[in-house]
Amino acid sequence: MGDNRERLDVAAPASLRTPLRLPHKALMGAGPVNADPRVLLAGSLPILGHMHPETIAVMDEIKEGLQYAFQTKNPVTLCLSCAGHGGMEASLSNVLEPGDVAVIAVSGLWGHRAADMATRHGARVVLLETPLGQPVSLEAAEEALAKHRPRLLFLVQCESSTSALQPLEGFGPLCHRYGALLVVDAVASLGGAPLWTDRWELDVVYTGSQKALNAPPGLAPITFSPRAMQRIEARKKPCSVYYWDVRVLGDYWGCFGRPRIYHHTCPITLFLALREALAIFASESLTATWRRHADAAQRLYDGLDRLGLGLSLFVEDPRHRTPTLTAVKVPPSVDPASVLRTAISRHGVEIGGGLGPTAGRIFRIGLFGVHANPMTVDMVLRVLEDSIKNPISVSKL
Amino acid sequence: MGDNRERLDVAAPASLRTPLRLPHKALMGAGPVNADPRVLLAGSLPILGHMHPETIAVMDEIKEGLQYAFQTKNPVTLCLSCAGHGGMEASLSNVLEPGDVAVIAVSGLWGHRAADMATRHGARVVLLETPLGQPVSLEAAEEALAKHRPRLLFLVQCESSTSALQPLEGFGPLCHRYGALLVVDAVASLGGAPLWTDRWELDVVYTGSQKALNAPPGLAPITFSPRAMQRIEARKKPCSVYYWDVRVLGDYWGCFGRPRIYHHTCPITLFLALREALAIFASESLTATWRRHADAAQRLYDGLDRLGLGLSLFVEDPRHRTPTLTAVKVPPSVDPASVLRTAISRHGVEIGGGLGPTAGRIFRIGLFGVHANPMTVDMVLRVLEDSIKNPISVSKL
Repeated sequence: MGDNRERLDVAAPASLRTPLRLPHKALMGAGPVNADPRVLLAGSLPILGHMHPETIAVMDEIKEGLQYAFQTKNPVTLCLSCAGHGGMEASLSNVLEPGDVAVIAVSGLWGHRAADMATRHGARVVLLETPLGQPVSLEAAEEALAKHRPRLLFLVQCESSTSALQPLEGFGPLCHRYGALLVVDAVASLGGAPLWTDRWELDVVYTGSQKALNAPPGLAPITFSPRAMQRIEARKKPCSVYYWDVRVLGDYWGCFGRPRIYHHTCPITLFLALREALAIFASESLTATWRRHADAAQRLYDGLDRLGLGLSLFVEDPRHRTPTLTAVKVPPSVDPASVLRTAISRHGVEIGGGLGPTAGRIFRIGLFGVHANPMTVDMVLRVLEDSIKNPISVSKL
Repeated sequence: MGDNRERLDVAAPASLRTPLRLPHKALMGAGPVNADPRVLLAGSLPILGHMHPETIAVMDEIKEGLQYAFQTKNPVTLCLSCAGHGGMEASLSNVLEPGDVAVIAVSGLWGHRAADMATRHGARVVLLETPLGQPVSLEAAEEALAKHRPRLLFLVQCESSTSALQPLEGFGPLCHRYGALLVVDAVASLGGAPLWTDRWELDVVYTGSQKALNAPPGLAPITFSPRAMQRIEARKKPCSVYYWDVRVLGDYWGCFGRPRIYHHTCPITLFLALREALAIFASESLTATWRRHADAAQRLYDGLDRLGLGLSLFVEDPRHRTPTLTAVKVPPSVDPASVLRTAISRHGVEIGGGLGPTAGRIFRIGLFGVHANPMTVDMVLRVLEDSIKNPISVSKL
């Protein structure tokens, strides 16, 4: 060990000598989304230990808030300490064992991502494909269940690359008749579109903290039905990933009525922020929250129509549109990149572009949580109108 | 969907109706650790998107800060969006394929945890055990390498259940002579004890954000040597976990000179806080930081001696003590639980108890980052003295 910085192999970087300076933006793409000031302030609270009584109390409150948001009495309802992608991988890797069959609905990006993960974990994947923007029907699902007798069926409630809504009612009992579990990705929908975990017999549902719940990104709320837990308890070998093995993690969250055990050092600042976000979320009746999102989406559809700029919705059937996120087809004469650039640089408003198979073909307007209100809808309509009519040309940047 | 809350299956929880009220504590156990106010304030900055230019700039600054902290020029240096436990699992699952042999040093809790993870990922694990508080010698390592010809040797620099320091110099070249990679857990040591990734030829090193770097918990900084990347590129099958497959995640962090790709929605508030923590960290010369930790530890050892309460160090050989964390044997007449309870409830100071094999046998005093200074050492000595001499009895609580 030397006495001066000359002896170091790598010098201190100059980039870290200046303080952070960040702009404020209205995040109205597919997420993450702006958080309420109360939620942001929680990110500045002092650090607490992972087994402190205050931390455990906050975890219990989060669990109750999530049971409300998921509409479930599942005791195994908790938060994974990772992004929503970890929720997807945790769902699949807890349920699947090598050689199991997984039927995965694909109508955009997320089914492919789930198929990639399930394959890595050793499952045999069957894709159940539908055209972009169209959900899987009960009939198609039954055909796949009967033919492949899978361990699970994987559905995405809101396919955020198209903004299509997958109806979920009826799929739970159907899966159970064929001995399969129903795994649902509710990342871009939970809290903004109706979801009834228990009533619809969903077995594993996960979401991300940063969408309609309006917390910072970094946590993946998840719930497991008793039927899912029965399957997990019957595994021949433990889940291949310790970090999200719910049989171990569930003891940290007090899900099994046993003493708490240390599983990992929890991201306490994110827990505190999510707790505050859930407190705000639960202060409005959930049915009113869903209605507010539906009303905001309808106001957006009507407003797009009134703009008269040839903006039509990507999802044609009104029953298959997600209230939280709306994909709008890019008219032939419009350069989407310059529109998005104008919205963010002139107005400070982020509108999303396409993703995966829809890249360059759509705009995506998010009305998650705090943004699901008439004033914000009218604002984003004005921003979109100006950005299409008066785009900043690339040469002026 | 109904119109009123009566129609819900699960009502809004009463526990979320009150605002958060949390105490301030001095966290002087094994971590997490208190953060600088500048770091905490960063947790309240507005949310940014995962591909925004400001986010990418912050990621680049974090990478440079971590290359400094790890003392490495490895291009594949980044942060996993999970706790330090995820760093352990990512190290093992990126390098190991089913059937590979892993030699894992065990001298407390963490080697067993690593062995559990490696087994889940299909490796054949050989334990290299030493008595509690004693490191692995080069000779013992060479014997194991020669006998088992493993894919990797796993060492823990600071075994936090005993506070023992594992010397690392010489192990890299030794592993490489036997065709093995050297994986190092530096969770409880990085930033407080000397570690030279490149100079010592360490192949994978990871840590946690919440220890001597003094950021909030929730991120696992990690670095991969070119030799490790060569091995990973030669895998027959991809890493079984998408979430921390460094071949995909590395593209989000711009490690391979290719265009950035979206991998997951990053926990931006944690990134901002770690960026600020690294800015503070890099403003002191690293050699001075290491010396400050060594001086604080020595002052603690001397002070414990002067207290005259029969407090002796768990690790007998001074060369094998970690400056960041000090395990103190509980004297025979002392009830450790009541001492720890007195320290936290009367003084607001968290001192750690034992962990795993040392539970009930030791106190653990952490001097990580902001706490590695003479005033704090003297404070924790006074608190320990009072808590031993005048413990609150359980009946008074």
